[in-house]
Amino acid sequence: MRIPFENLRSAFESVLLSLNFSNEKAAHCATIFAQNSRDGVYTHGLNRFPTFVSMVKDGLIKPDAEPTKEGEFGAIEQWNGNLGPGILNAGFCMDRAIALANEHGIGCVAVKNTNHWMRAGTYGWQAAEAGLIGICFTNTIANLPPWGGIDPRLGNNPLVIAVPRAGGHIVLDMAISQYSVGKLNQYKSNNEELPLPGGYNNEGELSTNAADILQSQRLLPVGFWKGSGLSLVLDLLSTILSQGNSTAKITQSGKESGVSQVFICIKPQNNSFTQQAIEDIISFTKTSRPEHEGGSISYPGENTLRTREKSLRKGVLVDERIWKTVSEL
Amino acid sequence: MRIPFENLRSAFESVLLSLNFSNEKAAHCATIFAQNSRDGVYTHGLNRFPTFVSMVKDGLIKPDAEPTKEGEFGAIEQWNGNLGPGILNAGFCMDRAIALANEHGIGCVAVKNTNHWMRAGTYGWQAAEAGLIGICFTNTIANLPPWGGIDPRLGNNPLVIAVPRAGGHIVLDMAISQYSVGKLNQYKSNNEELPLPGGYNNEGELSTNAADILQSQRLLPVGFWKGSGLSLVLDLLSTILSQGNSTAKITQSGKESGVSQVFICIKPQNNSFTQQAIEDIISFTKTSRPEHEGGSISYPGENTLRTREKSLRKGVLVDERIWKTVSEL
Repeated sequence: MRIPFENLRSAFESVLLSLNFSNEKAAHCATIFAQNSRDGVYTHGLNRFPTFVSMVKDGLIKPDAEPTKEGEFGAIEQWNGNLGPGILNAGFCMDRAIALANEHGIGCVAVKNTNHWMRAGTYGWQAAEAGLIGICFTNTIANLPPWGGIDPRLGNNPLVIAVPRAGGHIVLDMAISQYSVGKLNQYKSNNEELPLPGGYNNEGELSTNAADILQSQRLLPVGFWKGSGLSLVLDLLSTILSQGNSTAKITQSGKESGVSQVFICIKPQNNSFTQQAIEDIISFTKTSRPEHEGGSISYPGENTLRTREKSLRKGVLVDERIWKTVSEL
Repeated sequence: MRIPFENLRSAFESVLLSLNFSNEKAAHCATIFAQNSRDGVYTHGLNRFPTFVSMVKDGLIKPDAEPTKEGEFGAIEQWNGNLGPGILNAGFCMDRAIALANEHGIGCVAVKNTNHWMRAGTYGWQAAEAGLIGICFTNTIANLPPWGGIDPRLGNNPLVIAVPRAGGHIVLDMAISQYSVGKLNQYKSNNEELPLPGGYNNEGELSTNAADILQSQRLLPVGFWKGSGLSLVLDLLSTILSQGNSTAKITQSGKESGVSQVFICIKPQNNSFTQQAIEDIISFTKTSRPEHEGGSISYPGENTLRTREKSLRKGVLVDERIWKTVSEL
């Protein structure tokens, strides 16, 4: 079913207010959760909201915590998220990175002791809206085996790279696992094969069977050994720059709380060369003949805008069962 | 066959001196080419040297060109490589990024009109040796189809992320194609199957047959649609930040010359927390049980050090035919 964006947003807001979020924080978090569903990232919008509420009730997310500065040097800063809501800490840190980049050309903010930021892309869109290139990444609990191994020891550590563009920002938002656990569960419950290999089965064969992959826990990193290395270095950067918890520490704690994140902004020259180059790059890419007749090639973020427009026009698509649960919270 | 590192280096140096490289530039380029072979990246060491020489002779690489500054703002700088040797320009720009990061905590240098930097990892090792986190990437001529398309419109745009570490730096050096064209040619001429899918055949099926992939030109980006998006944004960043040529422009020119690159350095806190966290992350990753009995899990850069040590002890492995060609240049 589809419901108006404002209904979704205000439902989230009411629940958050009942959980002792301040008016301002409830409004901010509710807006981001609703926007995530609006943009088609249902896994980190409505569908994730009940988990968020549980974590607040369990004391893993502290509604009233404010980030505090731990250090600074030139164009870099370290913050402590003090286990506040990930959405608020991440929005705050990207704002700091934007301010640093506006002052120094580039800025880097790392935060420790924060929580899941929901949709990674949110903060890429935030930087792009401010006219800046935004790069951010987070570590997570271990959910991927390193290349050559069978036990999960790496996070799927989402990485975002966003480029501002007048006709619609370009926002790459990619986790290091080929498919998320949420996606695999969806294919499993629909009894559908994955379109492409998503991991290994217990026999060590590449598989398109979501149930088999979930059972083996051997999700595939993007690009096999390459994604395995990329996940490791993103965890190293998050941990070192924030002086916070690594995937190892988060995993050993048993709960995905107190994660580490990095936000980098760069100020591009907003001139006609830049604008033309972006359009040339996109147009050139789209001249590749489509694999299937009638197919088309999109840039990262292009489909998001389409989904957003439809959600605002026709209402945001919600899972009726989860929507009922949240409305009754 | 194996030959002493110094023989390889001095052979390169002699050739470069005969091509009107200054003493200093010949020594620098020769060292990097020899180090690339020494570290096992044969495709960008000896094996690539004859192509480099041809490009110098054809005037696409200008031995005496010096980089010139085009702009600066705080901790970011733009340079023009003036079509000088890619190795020299890249080394220079990473040095500038190191200096900026030492001053501002983070620094970013973009260069346009440069040439192929050979092994991407070279500049990651350079940053790590200086005690800094190094991130760099380059665009290339189109050699990958975008996701959903069949004609190459994206570069394989190598990306490097390096983390300094007392016991051996961690250096991720990954191109966006799952296998390079050089690697595919190697499998083809050995008549071997790829260990994992490396592209599509002309029938649009995922394939492990290198000859079929080379024929279709449908090399696989890492992580399918994800690598396609990553390649696009790396090209956007390289082009915008340097105000230089995009993959589109390079491809339209028909020659892989005048490429654009970005070098970012970040100064980590070199304290006991950082050192311990790095060791914890590596140790935790290695506790994943190996897929095959006797197998082991390595961090990016670990095998490089092993190869380097062996090359220095027993001599650098060279392709006898190419070595003969270069010795006679």
